[in-house]
Amino acid sequence: MPHVAFLGLGAIGRPMAVRLANAPGVTLTVWNRTRDKAERFAKEHDARAADSPADAARTADVVITCFAVSADVDSVLDGPDGLLAGMRRGTTLVDCTSGDPNSSRRIAGRLDGLGIAFLDAPVSGGTSGAEQGTLTVMVGGDAAVLARVRPVLEPFGTKIVHCGAVGAGDALKSVNNALLAVHVWSAAEGLAALAKAGVRPDVALDVINASSGRSNASMNLFPERVLTRAFPRTFRLALLAKDAGIAAAVAREQKVPAPLLQLTADLFRIAHTSLGEEADHVEAVRLVEQWAGQEIA
Amino acid sequence: MPHVAFLGLGAIGRPMAVRLANAPGVTLTVWNRTRDKAERFAKEHDARAADSPADAARTADVVITCFAVSADVDSVLDGPDGLLAGMRRGTTLVDCTSGDPNSSRRIAGRLDGLGIAFLDAPVSGGTSGAEQGTLTVMVGGDAAVLARVRPVLEPFGTKIVHCGAVGAGDALKSVNNALLAVHVWSAAEGLAALAKAGVRPDVALDVINASSGRSNASMNLFPERVLTRAFPRTFRLALLAKDAGIAAAVAREQKVPAPLLQLTADLFRIAHTSLGEEADHVEAVRLVEQWAGQEIA
Amino acid sequence: MPHVAFLGLGAIGRPMAVRLANAPGVTLTVWNRTRDKAERFAKEHDARAADSPADAARTADVVITCFAVSADVDSVLDGPDGLLAGMRRGTTLVDCTSGDPNSSRRIAGRLDGLGIAFLDAPVSGGTSGAEQGTLTVMVGGDAAVLARVRPVLEPFGTKIVHCGAVGAGDALKSVNNALLAVHVWSAAEGLAALAKAGVRPDVALDVINASSGRSNASMNLFPERVLTRAFPRTFRLALLAKDAGIAAAVAREQKVPAPLLQLTADLFRIAHTSLGEEADHVEAVRLVEQWAGQEIA
Amino acid sequence: MPHVAFLGLGAIGRPMAVRLANAPGVTLTVWNRTRDKAERFAKEHDARAADSPADAARTADVVITCFAVSADVDSVLDGPDGLLAGMRRGTTLVDCTSGDPNSSRRIAGRLDGLGIAFLDAPVSGGTSGAEQGTLTVMVGGDAAVLARVRPVLEPFGTKIVHCGAVGAGDALKSVNNALLAVHVWSAAEGLAALAKAGVRPDVALDVINASSGRSNASMNLFPERVLTRAFPRTFRLALLAKDAGIAAAVAREQKVPAPLLQLTADLFRIAHTSLGEEADHVEAVRLVEQWAGQEIA
Repeated sequence: MPHVAFLGLGAIGRPMAVRLANAPGVTLTVWNRTRDKAERFAKEHDARAADSPADAARTADVVITCFAVSADVDSVLDGPDGLLAGMRRGTTLVDCTSGDPNSSRRIAGRLDGLGIAFLDAPVSGGTSGAEQGTLTVMVGGDAAVLARVRPVLEPFGTKIVHCGAVGAGDALKSVNNALLAVHVWSAAEGLAALAKAGVRPDVALDVINASSGRSNASMNLFPERVLTRAFPRTFRLALLAKDAGIAAAVAREQKVPAPLLQLTADLFRIAHTSLGEEADHVEAVRLVEQWAGQEIA
Repeated sequence: MPHVAFLGLGAIGRPMAVRLANAPGVTLTVWNRTRDKAERFAKEHDARAADSPADAARTADVVITCFAVSADVDSVLDGPDGLLAGMRRGTTLVDCTSGDPNSSRRIAGRLDGLGIAFLDAPVSGGTSGAEQGTLTVMVGGDAAVLARVRPVLEPFGTKIVHCGAVGAGDALKSVNNALLAVHVWSAAEGLAALAKAGVRPDVALDVINASSGRSNASMNLFPERVLTRAFPRTFRLALLAKDAGIAAAVAREQKVPAPLLQLTADLFRIAHTSLGEEADHVEAVRLVEQWAGQEIA
Repeated sequence: MPHVAFLGLGAIGRPMAVRLANAPGVTLTVWNRTRDKAERFAKEHDARAADSPADAARTADVVITCFAVSADVDSVLDGPDGLLAGMRRGTTLVDCTSGDPNSSRRIAGRLDGLGIAFLDAPVSGGTSGAEQGTLTVMVGGDAAVLARVRPVLEPFGTKIVHCGAVGAGDALKSVNNALLAVHVWSAAEGLAALAKAGVRPDVALDVINASSGRSNASMNLFPERVLTRAFPRTFRLALLAKDAGIAAAVAREQKVPAPLLQLTADLFRIAHTSLGEEADHVEAVRLVEQWAGQEIA
Repeated sequence: MPHVAFLGLGAIGRPMAVRLANAPGVTLTVWNRTRDKAERFAKEHDARAADSPADAARTADVVITCFAVSADVDSVLDGPDGLLAGMRRGTTLVDCTSGDPNSSRRIAGRLDGLGIAFLDAPVSGGTSGAEQGTLTVMVGGDAAVLARVRPVLEPFGTKIVHCGAVGAGDALKSVNNALLAVHVWSAAEGLAALAKAGVRPDVALDVINASSGRSNASMNLFPERVLTRAFPRTFRLALLAKDAGIAAAVAREQKVPAPLLQLTADLFRIAHTSLGEEADHVEAVRLVEQWAGQEIA
């Protein structure tokens, strides 16, 4: 009967923690930088709110972190209240942050010296996947460690995939998201050009989605979010820009020329600067529209 | 009971013509630059082999052309044996070539002066779609003309979409194919980088295809053609490079900045030069692999 | 003693026309769309102001046009007041517009049918070069025609170069300007990155200009216009964006992969959209600065 | 009267060391991985050949390293024969390698703990600049340290510039070289397109070099090395590709969108892979030519 500590009750983390709270046999402690959130969670679910990362970790067999970026993980490791002050030898840190492989390797190296195992385990599937426990979990690290902690991941993940050594989960997550970024941006370019040339975006998408040029972006995001001008804020552009940057860095470190991924990383960086912190990732389309002088609607 | 002339019995054109030959109530004449092909077709199907484009056109209510590029259409228009010498006022030329909008507009303008209607009507769905009569047909031109000739398109097309004025079909087809090109190339970049970083391509594709980065390329082309190293030759890289170039030209003419489409057009041009005339479009992956020093397998 | 008609008294055209007015043995007629400008010119210099292009052309041996874009040349050709109504067989149209080769070839073709010779003859050297008569003139067309009209170009051009057939002058001018665009933009990227990394732009330029990375942009434009924040408006960004687009089109038509020129054309198109019609070409740097969150000063 | 140890007698390092050997008041020890080179140097010049980096460093006030990449510096630091085993507190390591800023910062951090100062001090000016002692030296690190060691740099450098903190010299060198790379590649694109369009490269260069598109590449490298097809091997493409990659990394770390520098880094990486280890940096032009199907000659 594992004790689990869950740190980071954000848009994805919170529903993941809810799944764990409801899982039979799991004893859950939660922590969040904004303390309120953790206390509210503890009131509503079968869980204890911890005072600090160290406090959360003290009784935990498995600590799960779910933050925005790897630097957030770094920021909870050290000091008297930090994770390292609480975690015991033989336990495991599972980092569900969409992190960068180099940071994960560095953290894993530090933990290794303390007898603590580390897995990078970013997830995909969005808020609804987290709520329904149908996330895909991309795991980097020792396969035996994954086998051991797998029961703790199953409450929220249906597809739990061992990808390789530490950092492999991060790398794969970043490439998946970079492809999403490529698909959103290139479809926007094409649809804006077609619209200016007199082809209605809904007609164009109807045809593309029956043809070889289709993608998740063209089949789901554009019809539901762009044509409707709804642009719901479900996943921040800032985070997709970060992921595209990580994928570009993976390519460079591997000495793989990747001109499309590099250019996409810069375009999303520009979009992030131009559209701000709160913009949704699909709103990158707005910058393409602005440059084109043409709405896709 | 329409008389139809079909010019261009290539990989896609031939099965389209077969569908027409088998359609009740269609009287079919076929022509092909290599005369043999037309004669064999006439022997095997209910059709007459014409001596020349002019000969094919003489009795036709609708002439259908299905060539590699718009310049091929131009090359059969003029001279005593050309289409214009045979086509009568009030008939229609339906060009199923994946052409370029400017050429289509120029040709339409010439035909207009002769009282002949023109539709650009490129198709998607590949050889198997043509054989089964389930092609998507993207039509540019007068909607009333399309309404009139639609029965002649239905034997091979299930999704016949009016996209806009002359050139709109070409423009949409080119953008669909340009997106295909973007998806193939960017997935290759990402998978090569992951493979070098120790993430197996089959694992990566399994995850991506359950996630937000999926596309027709990642779901179908990579598993079936790249991982298997089969690279069947179904659609020439030279033609996809041409289409990507047309889409890039559409963007430029519409003054739409489209850095991803422009770069993709150049990458496929380079791939075409490097891999030759016979290479399949998915073999563009081979150039990414060569640059990366890493096979995706 | 040649009669010269000069159409287009803009920033470059006007000082060129002044040089012609002062040249011994030249009889000059000027025309400008804004009539005032032509009349003022005629008052101040030894020249007649014409009522229309046709009127200007009527007595001319050589007509010189100097407009912003080739479409401006097109716009003065036709109609009862147009150039073609006034020009006589055996005369020559010298177009000093930074035009596009296709337009020049089309215009040359029309004139050829009327017995009128055509040279594309864009100039470089800026306002001061025009004032001092030290422009470089890049000439496309028949070398014998150039030999004939050369005396009419010498008052404003010291380097008069025959580049090739009609369109060659335009093509070369566009590539020169595209390289200028590449140099300005890439230097801005590099200097912004260095400035954020703590290297002062003046120090960086001092070193670069003594090293292998130097260009006209780094040696002259950045020290005089960017570091000083002066950004004088001497050559419109809109026109440089147009030229970069022409060079990109030349590369495409020649089937030359040119990813840097294509990307630069799109970046300047974006800068033009973002910074407006009046911005100077060097102000493209402002967009790089904005994206970088870093001034180069 | 300073004792100087010089490590790395390569194409640039050797003539720098000769300048030091001939400088009055300098006592020189040299070391090279291939021992022969050091011994020959000691025979021909007023210098001692050391057995190891540690041996070279033992009596030195200033150690100068001049290698291909930062990793080479790392490789001589550790172990009983390494620099750190020989260098004394209060001495200075001046690294003239065209290194990367992160490596330099890491090395500086290690040395700082040992009471040893560090300067990154890459040079530009080529072999002939080294021979004549007219190199530009771009220095990152403490200005007071530079003031102290400046006399030791003056025998080979006429322009010794303090650029900022440790890493600033590397950063500036990389950007200078990245701009060189941009200029070489973009000029090749433009000249190949022009050549295919019928404009002779020598004519094009003559005009460009009198106009706004000129750069060190167009003024010196293309006339002397490309048009002549001489392509002398003076500076390896592999090293320029490395430098372009470093500049791209500086931009990314500073969160500066730099699409032209990023694309150029990938193009040179591709050229390096395609043309091999021995190719000269200007031979990148050969890949542009190959893609274009057009020689620039």
